[in-house]
Formats: sequence, C-alpha cells, structure tokens
Amino acid sequence: MTKCNDIIENELTEIAMRLIEEKFRKLGTDNAPGQEVRQQITQGDLKLVGDNIPGRVVDFSHGDVDAFTPIPGSFEAFTEGYEVGGAQAYTEYRGSLVIREDLAQKLATFTGSPVQGDEDLIITTGTQGALFLAAASTIARGTKVVVVQPDYFANRKLVEFFDGEMIPVPMDYLNVKGKAGLDLNVLEDAFKQGAEVFLFSNPNNPAGVVYSEDEIIEIARLAEKYSVTLIVDQLYSRLRYDGESYTHMCAHWHKAGLDGNKIVTIIGPSKTESMSGYRLGVAFGSPEIIERMEKLQAIVSLRAAGYNQAVLKTWFSEPEGWMEQRIKAHQAIRNDLIEILSNIEDVRVRTPQAGSYLFPQLPKLNSSGLDFVRALRLQACVIVTPGTEFSPYAESSIRFNFSQNHQAAVDAVQRVAKMVARYRI
Amino acid sequence: MTKCNDIIENELTEIAMRLIEEKFRKLGTDNAPGQEVRQQITQGDLKLVGDNIPGRVVDFSHGDVDAFTPIPGSFEAFTEGYEVGGAQAYTEYRGSLVIREDLAQKLATFTGSPVQGDEDLIITTGTQGALFLAAASTIARGTKVVVVQPDYFANRKLVEFFDGEMIPVPMDYLNVKGKAGLDLNVLEDAFKQGAEVFLFSNPNNPAGVVYSEDEIIEIARLAEKYSVTLIVDQLYSRLRYDGESYTHMCAHWHKAGLDGNKIVTIIGPSKTESMSGYRLGVAFGSPEIIERMEKLQAIVSLRAAGYNQAVLKTWFSEPEGWMEQRIKAHQAIRNDLIEILSNIEDVRVRTPQAGSYLFPQLPKLNSSGLDFVRALRLQACVIVTPGTEFSPYAESSIRFNFSQNHQAAVDAVQRVAKMVARYRI
Repeated sequence: MTKCNDIIENELTEIAMRLIEEKFRKLGTDNAPGQEVRQQITQGDLKLVGDNIPGRVVDFSHGDVDAFTPIPGSFEAFTEGYEVGGAQAYTEYRGSLVIREDLAQKLATFTGSPVQGDEDLIITTGTQGALFLAAASTIARGTKVVVVQPDYFANRKLVEFFDGEMIPVPMDYLNVKGKAGLDLNVLEDAFKQGAEVFLFSNPNNPAGVVYSEDEIIEIARLAEKYSVTLIVDQLYSRLRYDGESYTHMCAHWHKAGLDGNKIVTIIGPSKTESMSGYRLGVAFGSPEIIERMEKLQAIVSLRAAGYNQAVLKTWFSEPEGWMEQRIKAHQAIRNDLIEILSNIEDVRVRTPQAGSYLFPQLPKLNSSGLDFVRALRLQACVIVTPGTEFSPYAESSIRFNFSQNHQAAVDAVQRVAKMVARYRI
Repeated sequence: MTKCNDIIENELTEIAMRLIEEKFRKLGTDNAPGQEVRQQITQGDLKLVGDNIPGRVVDFSHGDVDAFTPIPGSFEAFTEGYEVGGAQAYTEYRGSLVIREDLAQKLATFTGSPVQGDEDLIITTGTQGALFLAAASTIARGTKVVVVQPDYFANRKLVEFFDGEMIPVPMDYLNVKGKAGLDLNVLEDAFKQGAEVFLFSNPNNPAGVVYSEDEIIEIARLAEKYSVTLIVDQLYSRLRYDGESYTHMCAHWHKAGLDGNKIVTIIGPSKTESMSGYRLGVAFGSPEIIERMEKLQAIVSLRAAGYNQAVLKTWFSEPEGWMEQRIKAHQAIRNDLIEILSNIEDVRVRTPQAGSYLFPQLPKLNSSGLDFVRALRLQACVIVTPGTEFSPYAESSIRFNFSQNHQAAVDAVQRVAKMVARYRI
C-alpha cells in the first residue's frame, strides 16, 4: 500500500513538474520588446533578399528616452529622496503615504473620479508591476479572463501564468471609425460564459486607438450586469492627440454608481514621461484589490524602490507647457510616419488617437512575420515588435513605438518601406 | 444537461474564489517588519502595565540606513547611470550585461565558485525579488518544499502562494554550539518524503547563526542523493564577525561536482551595504532556473530599475577598509546588546555569528507575544518583529535588527529589559 502511494506520489510530482515546465515555455520572451539582443540570429538562418540598407539603428521596440528625456526635475527629486535617507528607503509596502496622497489628488483631478491616497492606491515597480499584482489578486486557477486581440502581450501571459482561462475578444481597429472597435457581442458572450475579469489597455497597445464614450458605457453596463471586475491599463492616457476625446472608465464607473470594489485603474510615468528607468507605476481603485496587491508586493519586491518613489512628485506637476510640447512633437512624428506607411501599396494602418504606437498591417510577404522582423533588424537596422506578440491573428502586423528622434524615425520607416517592397509577394 | 454544466461551472468558480481569498488571507502583512504603521492599535486594546518609558524611537524591524549609510559613491554611480540615458533605462530583463559580467567576477571571487555573467546571473528588484522569482521557478502546485523553523518569514509565504506543500525542519539554534543546529535527520526524512526544493537563509534570519562546514557538506550530500534543488539566501554572508568561518554552499557544490542546475544562490546589497532604497538583488547559479526567473521577471516588473542597476558597480568595490569598519561597528553593538539581554533573568539568546539580527527568547509573559510587541511600541518606543513571523514555535521570541545608532540601540534594549521585568509572570 505504501508502495502504491509512493507511485501515485511520484506520478503527481511528474505532472506538477510538467505543468511548471509548460508554464515557463509559454512565458517565452525572446521576441518581446527589448530582448532582441538575446537572439543569436545570423544571416544564414534567413532567406535574405538584397543588400543591407545602411542607416542609424532605430529601436522601435520601446521609446527612446534620449530623444524624449524624463520630466525636468525628476533627477533632482530622486536626489532629494536619497537625501531624506531611511524614511524614504523604507516606505510601507504600498509606498510612501505622503506621495500616495499627493498622487491621489492629482489622479482624481486627471480622471474626474475620487481617489483616496490611504486606501485606494498602491505604488508599484512600473505599470508592469501593477498589472502583475492586479492579475495575481483577481485570477486563480480556472478564472475566466477576457483579453482583447490585439492587446499588450503581457496580458495573455499573466492569465496563463496564474492558470486562468483566457477568453479572447476581437477588436476591429482597422475597419471602424470613431471607436476602438471592440466586438461588444463577443464581449457579452464571454461575460455570459462566466468571465470574472476583463483586462484591457485604453488607449490600446499596440493599435493606438481609444475606446469611445459609447464603448466605455456599454462595457461598464455589461461588467455590472455580469459582475465582472475591470482592470484598465491607462498607461498612455495622457498622450492624446489633437481633437481626441477620452472617457476614463473609473470616472464613468463612479458616476454610474457601480461597485467600487470591481475596478482597478493602472497608470504610470514610464511612457509619455520617459521615466521607465525609475520603474514606477500606480494602481488605484478597489480597496480590496489594492490590499491584496500590497500583500503580494510584500513577497514580490517589498516595494517600489524607495528613493525612486520620490520622483513621482514631479509627475502631473511638469513645467508649464512641457506636456503640450511633448504631445505636439509626437503628433508630428506620427503624421510623418503615417504618411510614409500609407503610401506603401496594400499597407493598412489606422492613425493612432493616443500613445506612441503604430501597428500597420503589411501586405503578404515571402517570409513569415517573424522572419521579416529579423530581416528588418539585420538588413535595415530597424527593430520592431512582431504582431504575434499582441494577437495570434496579427502575423502580418508589426508594432513601432515612434517615441524616437524624429528624423531617425522617418529614415527608418522609409527603410521599412523599401524592405516591404523587396519582400512582398 | 447545459443547466447541470452551469451549476458545476458555478461551483468551480466559487471554489476558485475561495481559494484565492484563502491565499491572500495567509499573506497577511500587518505584523511584517515595516508595516507597523498600518496597525491601528490604541492603548485600550491592550492590558498595559505601568507608565510609558520615554526614549528615542528605535525601529528594530529593519536597519537604520541613516546610522549606517549606503556605500560611498553609490549615489554618484546612480547619477552616472541616469546620465547614460536610454541604454541604462532599458536593459535586458535580466539586467545590463556589462554589470552582470562585472558582478559575476566579483561573486566568483567572493564565493570561490565559478559564475558566468551571461547565463548564470540575474539582477532583480531586491533579494526579495530574487526569492520570489526563484520560488516561482521551482514551486508548482503540490511541490514539496523544505523550510527551516525559524527562517525568513517570506519563505513560508512564498511556498503557500505557489500552492506548494511546506515541510518544516527545526533548527535548534539555542542549544547547539559551533553549528546552526538544523535537524539533519528530519531534513533527510523530508527529502525522503519527496521534497524537491530546500529554501533556506545562511546566515540564518532571524537567529544570526551560520551553517557549519559539516552541515553544508551533509545538506549537499542529501540534496544530491534525493535530487533536491537548493535555493540559498546568503543576504547576510558578508557581515561576519571576528573568528567566524563561512562555507559557501555554491563553492562546495561545485567542488563536489554536483549538478549545477540544482542550485541558486541569492545575495544583494540591501543589508550590510544599506542599499535597500535602491531595491537591488542578484541570483546566480543554475542557468535553467535563471532563465525561468528572467521570463517571469518580464511580466512581474520587466527589470530592476535601469538607473539603479548602475549602483551595483560600487558593490564589492567599496573603499579600502569600509567593510571592515562596518563589521567592527556592528560587532560592538552586538556585544553591548548581548550583554544587556544576557543579564535579563530567563532570557535565552545566542550570540549571532553574522548579520545584524538578534533573536532572544523571552521568559513567560503575562501577555501574548504579539501583545508584548505592541506594548513595546506603545510604551517603550521600540519596534521589533514578533517571533511568530519566523516560526510558529517562536511566540516567546522577538527579532531585533541591530543595524542602528549604537547608543539609541543600547538605550532601547534597556527599555525592553524594563518591559520584560514588568510583564513577566
């Protein structure tokens, strides 16, 4: 009998080991933005067409914080934090109360929704940290989670890591106008099937589209009807272009009197404000979820780096006109790149309403999407992120983060145009 | 039938929700070091004896980085990192290769075991980050994990969070001499029962004891025999007092020719070097586990804050004599506190061989261990961590991190002595 138990025990151990192996296999990061350096690609692996097209390397996998530098005064704020010493080094796990209260006020003003610094907000290690903690706090084995296709690549990975069950909902960003294009019927079906969490980015990463007020209202109505928790990643919600309106889900949620424990909003200064090197993010909303996130942060990283937290004082307190100027500069780059891309035959691209991502759909190519991305890197000194990181149906799309030196970005996208001409069927 | 499926579905959803609630309940952090500020205790909740004992507040829950400041030049290294700009802000997920290679060399020298910067090492958000990622990479549902009692409180929480099964092994640190006192028979039993991972700190947190060479050799022999993976937290391994020897498990492991994929060592500059405010840690060893840790870090926090990574250049490159001076200063505090504590009747305490923790066992008191800790805070301006954070059998112990202003620490422990006299049975 003991022997028999041992055998069963060993079997179970084997299964557990296979599960964890499978889990990490799915977590592949080789094609993730910024990881290209780990790929050992040589020209021999690819069927390359034509010669190299010389030019300055442009890494569109993330923004260039040398072209768009961090908020003026952020380094000085770090310095002050360092000089405070121990009190700044060791904050509560959810972050310094003084800084949380300051942020709460600013975020309430920005979103038009009430935020309490003591109970409703946590400072995290980047918005990635906020996403991870929010997902871990709401997704357990078998939890059904709605994920938009396309959307930020980590969303899918988070659901898989926590053994949740992903229900994809398509967003037809290319064919609609005046709205993001989420299929609300499929969304309702997913909610009917028992989805408990809806995790999405707005503005959407990678498509750069913004959910319309009607879409926000309908998502909220459905979420309430089916008792779904919303995790809204608003990382790019400050970088909005001329004439674009934006509806903060949290503000609508509050106005509609919905359950304040069923929504978390995530935002941070890593993108528009170029502060990624400090690894700071914020989540606010449901006190219940925020409390879980803090408990978990205590074993994940203790807290966002104490000295770094001080930098948040400069966020939403930028010098007069600085943000307007930054948006204007991005809009100019966007317009130039859209013009180049639109002139490539059979390329389909929607002009982003917000954020610094472009997600064109390329014509049919002689190579796989992944191989084309590799060829761009090897032959054209252009690094982009393959569309399949964002949706299994986006093999023919590539993502550009156009927060770059303006001229370098224009030159690089012109090289991409040449490469498309070279590789198209 | 569909109806029946729905009912089953709902049941399963309920179970999943209860599981996640239970998981977060167990993750309680209210009594964790540094979280005392969140406790709303009033005198009315406790049966307090006597008046307050005035004095300067000493927070023994963590080291005082104002008393022992960060490595000279660390702030300048941060500044240089910030000035590098984008290349420093966006490193690989596992950290900057240049910094990893520098660290690998230094850690190889320190431990006497080979370390490759490209494949064997990851930079994390503090050693807490390293522990979390290492645990997540090796513990799945049902994985049996050996945890020492007492040991760092997060070890237990990590096993629970990943649905592992904890097998406790006692360490009789109070009654043995010349070794840590781990019960090696119980350890072998645990390994026989199918434990796959052994996670432990050396020097031990909270007891400050060091595993003897014989213990290290025997743990390695048993781990190899039963194919157990070791995660060795060496956070305090640089702060060793006069005459104390230390055996690096990784060095012995290598010398003995054991499987290099079954061991990970964790270390960081947060304690002895007072750099906790930068949130930096390192894990090195098994390339397989390090690779998993990187994949996971990509969704947990992307990377340790880029600018902060630059600070690691100063680690193990401190000014001549700086570390010796730091150890000497801690040894002097240790000696004074040990003298005060030893003179309290019925207090049992072992002199720490390394690190800055003291873990005395107090005599029987009129109040629970937790209430006494609260009384210390309210009446004596002394913050300590309750023993039950480290072991369920340590209710009568309290932990001091004595990396404090020397005189303030002495005064505070004298107040503790008065409080013990007041509350003892």
